[in-house]
Amino acid sequence: MTLVIHLGGDYTMSVGITRIADAEAIEPKRRDGRERLLNGARKLLAEKGYAGMELRDVAEVGDAPRGSIYHHFPGGKIQLAVEATAREGAEVQTAIERSLEERGLAATLAMFGEMFARRVKDHPERLGCPVAAAALARPEDPALAAAATAAFASWEGPIAAALRDEGVGEQDAAAFAGLVVSTIEGALIRARAAADRAPLDSAVIGLERALDSLLASTS
Amino acid sequence: MTLVIHLGGDYTMSVGITRIADAEAIEPKRRDGRERLLNGARKLLAEKGYAGMELRDVAEVGDAPRGSIYHHFPGGKIQLAVEATAREGAEVQTAIERSLEERGLAATLAMFGEMFARRVKDHPERLGCPVAAAALARPEDPALAAAATAAFASWEGPIAAALRDEGVGEQDAAAFAGLVVSTIEGALIRARAAADRAPLDSAVIGLERALDSLLASTS
Repeated sequence: MTLVIHLGGDYTMSVGITRIADAEAIEPKRRDGRERLLNGARKLLAEKGYAGMELRDVAEVGDAPRGSIYHHFPGGKIQLAVEATAREGAEVQTAIERSLEERGLAATLAMFGEMFARRVKDHPERLGCPVAAAALARPEDPALAAAATAAFASWEGPIAAALRDEGVGEQDAAAFAGLVVSTIEGALIRARAAADRAPLDSAVIGLERALDSLLASTS
Repeated sequence: MTLVIHLGGDYTMSVGITRIADAEAIEPKRRDGRERLLNGARKLLAEKGYAGMELRDVAEVGDAPRGSIYHHFPGGKIQLAVEATAREGAEVQTAIERSLEERGLAATLAMFGEMFARRVKDHPERLGCPVAAAALARPEDPALAAAATAAFASWEGPIAAALRDEGVGEQDAAAFAGLVVSTIEGALIRARAAADRAPLDSAVIGLERALDSLLASTS
């Protein structure tokens, strides 16, 4: 069996499976449909926001019958969105942790931006983040906002830890990790508006410079 | 006549007028209604996004008859949103320019965050930015996204100019100005999700530290 690690780049499962026989052995069909719906919801949240995420589109993008949504998510749209946000949070967190381990802090900043850009390939006007969409659904849906806050925190955690490992003080490490997440989220909005990934790339460069300064002042 | 400068803090006109007699002399009633609708649209865009901005709510928040919307904005919702975005852009730009002139760069970073926080007072779960909402309306409404991009650029411009005045090189000044705008926009999303302005305050502190480092490496 071959495992393909996707690093959360394209709304597929973190661990893809290359042979259908293996997939069926491990993932029952029922579960596949659920996964596809979650990935469809992530994609639509990022592109259209919570208000614009229509269940018929989730079913279409997820290649699943519309009736299966309430089968897998009895709580309907809000449950689907909360779980999609949590899934996005966990997948991006894993990607950050792996990148930090394998490639270090500076490369991880670039990976963080790249991960979102890769999903929409040649369509920067569709750039977005499902977690930001969940955040913006407040104040109507506090459960969704809570899922977003948990996801953001799970991205900051490993970045702050890596900074502490480099000798950065606890407060400065937490502040910089927060800066990274806020900056990437803001840059995604600006890149989308500009229909150009340039603001995202600039934000990464700005963060890399700020990281250099922080580490220089630490050593 | 007394002029009250609001610095864009509460979706009122930049220049408020304290006596009704003065107001009537300067601003015909027709114009007042248009202004109130624009301010209502800004508030609703920030709180609910473009999809969630309903015209009946704009009329209510703007204390204007609903029928007056098409009188003032024949293009309807999209025209109202584009003009509201442009108004927000101009007002924040003016606030940034004044703050830079009167109080300098570091204080302006704090003012930039404070301006959004002040509008929602004790309701951080309503934090938002009408320009971000316009940006997120892409790809359906490129006119709205273009207004957002112009607004973001108009905020970066004076910040980059102030940095160049401090001796920062052109590229670094532009990159830092972009970082400021992206970071504040991302922090607004996170503060809203958390129903707590703390992420916004942290972002400002992170930017202030990055500014210190940038200026230290310049001098």
